[in-house]
Amino acid sequence: MRIAEGVEWAVHLCGVLGVVPDGYAVPAGRLAEFHDLPPDYLAKHLQALSRAGIVTANRGVSGGYRLARPASRVTLLDITLAIEGSEPAFRCTEIRQQGPCASPPAACKQLCPIAQAFLAAETQWRNALASVTVADIIRTAVSESFDKARRRTFQDWLNGAVK
Amino acid sequence: MRIAEGVEWAVHLCGVLGVVPDGYAVPAGRLAEFHDLPPDYLAKHLQALSRAGIVTANRGVSGGYRLARPASRVTLLDITLAIEGSEPAFRCTEIRQQGPCASPPAACKQLCPIAQAFLAAETQWRNALASVTVADIIRTAVSESFDKARRRTFQDWLNGAVK
Repeated sequence: MRIAEGVEWAVHLCGVLGVVPDGYAVPAGRLAEFHDLPPDYLAKHLQALSRAGIVTANRGVSGGYRLARPASRVTLLDITLAIEGSEPAFRCTEIRQQGPCASPPAACKQLCPIAQAFLAAETQWRNALASVTVADIIRTAVSESFDKARRRTFQDWLNGAVK
Repeated sequence: MRIAEGVEWAVHLCGVLGVVPDGYAVPAGRLAEFHDLPPDYLAKHLQALSRAGIVTANRGVSGGYRLARPASRVTLLDITLAIEGSEPAFRCTEIRQQGPCASPPAACKQLCPIAQAFLAAETQWRNALASVTVADIIRTAVSESFDKARRRTFQDWLNGAVK
């Protein structure tokens, strides 16, 4: 089981978009540049975020991406489901209904206890990711690793990137 | 993100092995037959369970598989990690150290806050799976869907399968 690396990219870049001033956007190419990511592959993830309503894409010469709502209202779960899809990680294929001792359909009205246990665990995981917002990530990242010089470097980059 | 179907198979079959009487084992072919699973593909998962110390393989004419410890001491997490590997689902690739605003190594002594959040969520998921044993699954499955006739069918199959 592996979470696609696109989730990591998307969370980082939503963090960047979370500090873009209102009315501005960042072109896809500049977002790719920010962490030196492959633009073509990143574009697919940006489209997925757009379809999920997490980012908004402006078209035209001043085109670019911005968050569709405040960073405090975008959770890590929102981003993960946008990139990975919303299906549960455990997908019961009802093998209890196969073989010489198959459970009859009448005995399978309730979800298989194995699927129940995996879905309960996944609910814990989802709740934990839903409790962390992009705003939380920005706050922690800035406090842990942004000294004065890095703030200036970032601000200079952002000033050059936004449209 | 998807949990391999081998995990579903393995939990079901550990449930079968959990009711095999002491001193007996079930050949791989009979285990595959139990839920009508492809024997070759299942064999790989049985080997993974064996490597993880969850099942023991007896060789020879009376060869077969049995649980290496009581069903009450095999958790869904044990089985999942045996089949899926023990690496976390979220694998941080440190993209914060790439690009024009890269964090310097000195600012990356702590795990990236994004990785921290995903690992915390995965800990919740793992703890939930570690709290459910194969014995729990057997108990629930039997109480929910084993009437007298199904118990007999299962017992007949088991009598024919064990060696």
